[in-house]
Amino acid sequence: MSQRKIGVTELVLRDGHQSLLATRMALEDMVEACEDIDKAGYWSVECWGGATYDSCIRFLNEDPWVRLRTFRELMPNTQLQMLLRGQNLLGYRHYEDEVVDRFVQKSAENGMDVFRVFDALNDPRNLERAMKSVVATGKHAQGTICYTISPVHTVEGYVKLAGRLLDMGAQSIAFKDMAALLQPQPAYDIIRGIKETYGEDTQINVHCHSTTGVTLVTLQKAIEAGADVVDTSISSLSLGPGHNPTESFVAMLEGTAFTTDLDQDRLIGIRDHFAKIRPKYKEFESATLVDTDIFASQIPGGMLSNMESQLKAQGAGDRTKEVMDMVPIVKADAGHPPLVTPSSQIVGTQAVFNVLMGPYKRMTAEFTDLMLGYYGESLGERNPDVIKIAEEQSNKPVITDRPANHLPPEWDQLVAETAKLEGNDGTEEDVLTYAMFPNVAPAFFATRDEGPKSVAKTEAQLKAEAEGQAGASTGPISYKVSLGGREHSVKVEPA
Amino acid sequence: MSQRKIGVTELVLRDGHQSLLATRMALEDMVEACEDIDKAGYWSVECWGGATYDSCIRFLNEDPWVRLRTFRELMPNTQLQMLLRGQNLLGYRHYEDEVVDRFVQKSAENGMDVFRVFDALNDPRNLERAMKSVVATGKHAQGTICYTISPVHTVEGYVKLAGRLLDMGAQSIAFKDMAALLQPQPAYDIIRGIKETYGEDTQINVHCHSTTGVTLVTLQKAIEAGADVVDTSISSLSLGPGHNPTESFVAMLEGTAFTTDLDQDRLIGIRDHFAKIRPKYKEFESATLVDTDIFASQIPGGMLSNMESQLKAQGAGDRTKEVMDMVPIVKADAGHPPLVTPSSQIVGTQAVFNVLMGPYKRMTAEFTDLMLGYYGESLGERNPDVIKIAEEQSNKPVITDRPANHLPPEWDQLVAETAKLEGNDGTEEDVLTYAMFPNVAPAFFATRDEGPKSVAKTEAQLKAEAEGQAGASTGPISYKVSLGGREHSVKVEPA
Repeated sequence: MSQRKIGVTELVLRDGHQSLLATRMALEDMVEACEDIDKAGYWSVECWGGATYDSCIRFLNEDPWVRLRTFRELMPNTQLQMLLRGQNLLGYRHYEDEVVDRFVQKSAENGMDVFRVFDALNDPRNLERAMKSVVATGKHAQGTICYTISPVHTVEGYVKLAGRLLDMGAQSIAFKDMAALLQPQPAYDIIRGIKETYGEDTQINVHCHSTTGVTLVTLQKAIEAGADVVDTSISSLSLGPGHNPTESFVAMLEGTAFTTDLDQDRLIGIRDHFAKIRPKYKEFESATLVDTDIFASQIPGGMLSNMESQLKAQGAGDRTKEVMDMVPIVKADAGHPPLVTPSSQIVGTQAVFNVLMGPYKRMTAEFTDLMLGYYGESLGERNPDVIKIAEEQSNKPVITDRPANHLPPEWDQLVAETAKLEGNDGTEEDVLTYAMFPNVAPAFFATRDEGPKSVAKTEAQLKAEAEGQAGASTGPISYKVSLGGREHSVKVEPA
Repeated sequence: MSQRKIGVTELVLRDGHQSLLATRMALEDMVEACEDIDKAGYWSVECWGGATYDSCIRFLNEDPWVRLRTFRELMPNTQLQMLLRGQNLLGYRHYEDEVVDRFVQKSAENGMDVFRVFDALNDPRNLERAMKSVVATGKHAQGTICYTISPVHTVEGYVKLAGRLLDMGAQSIAFKDMAALLQPQPAYDIIRGIKETYGEDTQINVHCHSTTGVTLVTLQKAIEAGADVVDTSISSLSLGPGHNPTESFVAMLEGTAFTTDLDQDRLIGIRDHFAKIRPKYKEFESATLVDTDIFASQIPGGMLSNMESQLKAQGAGDRTKEVMDMVPIVKADAGHPPLVTPSSQIVGTQAVFNVLMGPYKRMTAEFTDLMLGYYGESLGERNPDVIKIAEEQSNKPVITDRPANHLPPEWDQLVAETAKLEGNDGTEEDVLTYAMFPNVAPAFFATRDEGPKSVAKTEAQLKAEAEGQAGASTGPISYKVSLGGREHSVKVEPA
């Protein structure tokens, strides 16, 4: 039997620890696994993105560009892959086109091979410039579709969107299912549709989280429909809000018409490495194992907990149900955007405001921008009454063209501002770091010389904790205690 | 589109908590969920078996027959299902046929509807009598095949075995994949083979654990091949060494040619109930999330940890690798039995003995019995050289007929012995309890009047623990300390 080879993208160095360990993993805990990853036979290894970049400079005192160059050096045989938020790059706003060009250029120079470019609203105009930049570098431009379910999202619509991305020069189409909403049948239908419309050799990559427990079946059906590459994470950092385990995926295909050709011994090496590392980050771990609520509520778990904290902070912890009922209304008014960063926060916060203060009595600045077109176009029509309120509250006009068209050149100013920061090293990479995270970069530049500061527990700490839990086996503990009004130092030992 | 309805067996009341909470769940933590389970539309609810019976009398001071009658009363609309180890019933040895008849009769009288009958060696002669007894009661007799992978196990062999079970009067065939070894393609091939050989209306039930992370895909392929009923466990007690989540399974089928018709609101009720109960049994929880090692090693996780403790106890903790290499040899010598209780323990212990003392220098009594046919026939030929050693060491002859043929009548003696036990209530049910667990039943009868004794933590205990973990927020703690040779009571507060 001739088997079709399915490519695999290993996620453990980016989305794996982002989803399971709050993106806290330090480079020093990855380097040992790189040789096995490089030689396992992956189609690519995802290793860079907005959250890892942010975490590097915010928590780990690591230069994200050093991390990228280290990966390049340690994994010479494997395509390095990153996630890029279109015109947002790795930040939380749109950048003017020159910044986009320079960011892509520098990422390619430092070793990036595959750019997975997406936009939270699936507005192709927000991907356009980044895709063009990637194509200009000669690297792999992957056009990405964020999957969501709504009354306006159809198989035909997704197929059409894939066509627009291919027109931009996409060398492959990625399906990004961040909420584990992509069920097997729609996955099959959409991928078949793309293949039949644009040709069987159109490369399709599928990225699913495992939150709902359904998506390994989705990968199976995607492959049956013709998908070429799928994303998985090594088993020791998989499942729950993370991804399907790489080894389970390999086992799934055994004996079928498909194969991965991954090196099993290398996979064991990678697994054992991260199994050893994971406990060091236990305090950052996500607890969810499986959650199928989203199929009914359409509200991602992270968004729900955000809204719950907002309500609690307002002393309205008992109004969660009202807010959950409000979310679909706000989402529909905004034209049914996929709920993913940042639209999930924008819609969620507005839903909370609506419940606490009355519908659209007060809009957040972000929600008015969303209604007025500053984030781009949603697939559905936005509610004209709500647009009118947004205009009144913000004193800003509706825009209908590409949002970045409204941005003035900003590169020279970013260079000038970066030059003033203590510890900047004069590179374009530093300007880009400042551009992405202007509030965090200055402190990072100032402390960069001190070197990486891991937030992981050391093995000695873990050992001490394990012994502490064992109770009776610990030695005496010293306390300061008050006795008859006087303070004494005493040692307490288990009897 | 006309959809084929797939039946679902809910496992949470038996195998779900057996696999995840060491079978410790008390009846009192199940009763509240029974109405939702009864009205959700399940094909059956598995709620009784050897381990739950054992746990009732060993740990929970619960009468397992009372538990069964309670389920019958609380779930009048749903088929109750049990797991029965063929001629072993719920115990660890073969019983003489009259005991088998009486056990099945009493179980049916007390409310059991579906008897899933299996044998660890897949020897049909060990299922024969139990199947016949079930058929005689008019209840559902389900013939079961334990799935394993070996050089002698083939698709054709499994199809043939299904035929022998159908000849015994099986109303359905269950595929039991206790080690999560059943990959999608062989599942498809075997089920298709059974359907094509014995007719498309041959009912097939599929039971998979989720240990390897692959088996939700297995269920999908099984259904595509024609499987009629699948086993799942509600999401709040699912995954890891347990089972695929019921709600994920339902979501998986959405939009396909298959449907479950389960009531989603009832599923939410069941899920929320067990999500609330689970933390009370945290100390019994299994930690494994996903483990694909078994595909390479063929050694179930529980068996491996057993062998490791045996080695450690002998001061040979460093010889695990040798034992792991010995297991396939011992398994082959024994004719490739599936590794499931009790064959997993028998083969594992002999592998340990072989490494520590030399190959077959000393055999366990159980291993000689296995080699000499006292557990039944394996599918593969047993090694004649090893059979010879077994005869020499045990002074017992090889047998080739049905093992239970060699058992003398024992019912009257069991009645007489039970009658002497303090606290026995004179029922046949008590005789059966004594017959199954002669070492545990006497103590249980003696304390039965004291009523159920849950081993779960109370909500107050959980709350106190959570507060204790919060550390700084707890009040002063009182200690007795020695200071200058005298003992004082002191209160210690965080500084």
